Amino acid sequence: MKNKSNRIFRYRNYPQILAGAAAVGKTEGEGPLASSFDVLNPDDGVGCKSWEAAEAAFVTQAAEKAIEKSGVAPSGIDLSFSGDLLNQCTASTFGLRAFSIPHAGLFGACSTFALALGMAAMAVDGGYAAHVLAVSSSHFCSAEKQFRFPLEYGGQRAQTTQRTVTGAGACVIGQKKKQSGVFIAAGLVGKITDRGVKDAANMGAAMAPAAKETIAAFLDESETVPADYDMILTGDLGSVGSDLLKELLREEDGLDISAVHRDCGNLIFDPYTQDVHAGGSGCGCSAAVVSSRILRALQRKELKRVLFVGTGALMSPVSTLQGEAIPCIAHAVLLCSGTEEGEVLCGSKRS
Amino acid sequence: MKNKSNRIFRYRNYPQILAGAAAVGKTEGEGPLASSFDVLNPDDGVGCKSWEAAEAAFVTQAAEKAIEKSGVAPSGIDLSFSGDLLNQCTASTFGLRAFSIPHAGLFGACSTFALALGMAAMAVDGGYAAHVLAVSSSHFCSAEKQFRFPLEYGGQRAQTTQRTVTGAGACVIGQKKKQSGVFIAAGLVGKITDRGVKDAANMGAAMAPAAKETIAAFLDESETVPADYDMILTGDLGSVGSDLLKELLREEDGLDISAVHRDCGNLIFDPYTQDVHAGGSGCGCSAAVVSSRILRALQRKELKRVLFVGTGALMSPVSTLQGEAIPCIAHAVLLCSGTEEGEVLCGSKRS
Repeated sequence: MKNKSNRIFRYRNYPQILAGAAAVGKTEGEGPLASSFDVLNPDDGVGCKSWEAAEAAFVTQAAEKAIEKSGVAPSGIDLSFSGDLLNQCTASTFGLRAFSIPHAGLFGACSTFALALGMAAMAVDGGYAAHVLAVSSSHFCSAEKQFRFPLEYGGQRAQTTQRTVTGAGACVIGQKKKQSGVFIAAGLVGKITDRGVKDAANMGAAMAPAAKETIAAFLDESETVPADYDMILTGDLGSVGSDLLKELLREEDGLDISAVHRDCGNLIFDPYTQDVHAGGSGCGCSAAVVSSRILRALQRKELKRVLFVGTGALMSPVSTLQGEAIPCIAHAVLLCSGTEEGEVLCGSKRS
Repeated sequence: MKNKSNRIFRYRNYPQILAGAAAVGKTEGEGPLASSFDVLNPDDGVGCKSWEAAEAAFVTQAAEKAIEKSGVAPSGIDLSFSGDLLNQCTASTFGLRAFSIPHAGLFGACSTFALALGMAAMAVDGGYAAHVLAVSSSHFCSAEKQFRFPLEYGGQRAQTTQRTVTGAGACVIGQKKKQSGVFIAAGLVGKITDRGVKDAANMGAAMAPAAKETIAAFLDESETVPADYDMILTGDLGSVGSDLLKELLREEDGLDISAVHRDCGNLIFDPYTQDVHAGGSGCGCSAAVVSSRILRALQRKELKRVLFVGTGALMSPVSTLQGEAIPCIAHAVLLCSGTEEGEVLCGSKRS
């Protein structure tokens, strides 16, 4: 239930993440989170005739694995929320085409997975669905082709660019079965934020103000402080955007999140041994990281409260060529290792 | 609340459509529904430098007008659901950028407005938001440029093609204030349906099976028959797809909807005086028709129960060039002229 003048969705029935799974490509499988992923593909083409078909195959892999791990029969999944970066979100559509699950398409660019978790939690919390699949994907080769240049062109990428993650992440969200487990306690839908950044080779700078807006709004309305969270996890600002986010929150809101801030784009690749410039990005980046390493840490109670803030750049190649700035958005969900951890939102302000 | 093995979302708190508005282009303003639309633009470019910017301007017009008519202060709109056909849904993003409303992006191609109404109803019904904006748009010129050929090329269009509507429609959905008014009583999220149609110049044929799946599922699960509705309104199958839909329902499900079936793509243009081939289409078509003429007829109780079934073709130009078939989807919402009209779903089966 939501109070007037309060943007936070409070999921009072504690929808539970029953399982998560990630399927990734070669570079991701050579990175620091390799041991957490469920499916490591040695070839980013996964035997498909196009990069777009390959991306759809990653969606299928992650969704199948998450459903299998959840213990829910495929016919028991009532609804799916999914989206991706491809034109007309075809990776989601083609990747889920064979599933026979009612499908609500989302678009939030790289923020899509956070939006999908929030919408899935709403559908379960409100009693509209018993089991919901949330999935999103991206692919380095399909994204380069669509947003920048085909790989064959061999273009040089600026140091501020991020590498689109090849992979997909999926979670199955269901009604609370027991007190333990990982719950989605709250969500917050972001506002379109545009501070005039036009450099499509610096998405981190474009997206940082949107992440700032969402984090500041969530902390303010929940009357919490950064120390109330084990992790404030953005996805995917990369190294450039992460620094800007911390600077903006410090200067404009007096908030210091540096002790608890992590970014999915910084976690998925090793900046020293992998040539990924400013880190990872793409709808598949935070989806894969949250559905694997972060979910597992919550399951083991190594993390108790994670505020996951997905960030997306809502431009298209056409809008960029037309000289438009890059509107961005960030959606948040609060992930908790037990129902009691969600009570932070109902408590009084920390001093 | 939703029973197990039942796909229908039953909105027990009767979220209300407080107001709707439509902004359309020149051809639409010369059609049979002209007197119902709120904003008639004499120039499809509406003073913008690009067709994409013009489409965003239609979104802004429709959203502003719907909010104004609803009587809700702009700052009182808690959430928006929107989407369009452009790559990366930029008409929605740029059209709503200045609104400072939390924004959840949707993608369902031409089914987007039905999906937006369903999601808005869920957010209001579940108590997560008090006032929600649902909006979607399309533009003949931006769609031709992106999906087919730029207008300057002067290509000939097949007789099975539909004309993408230039326009946008918006509704404001809020919590029930009184017994009278127009309510969203139920919703149903469609399944991705693909019967192998590959002809991107015949969307009606591609989408008809998806509409069939959704209508048959809704009637079956609600234990209702076509005669329980004043109108089963698809959007947008056009003339070719509408005939196929009726044939499929008759042959595969033994259902005859011909007495109550209408299609937004057939309503918005005059097939005799306007050269629109198989009728209208686009995210803006059903959005504009439902937000104006249909909503008004419900408000005046000229229509009491309308099952609105938005239909979308989820392909991209790339998937079509790669030889893929066209996966389609149809989402349904039940619109009622009073709370008692929604009780059809809770009653016993008509004989």
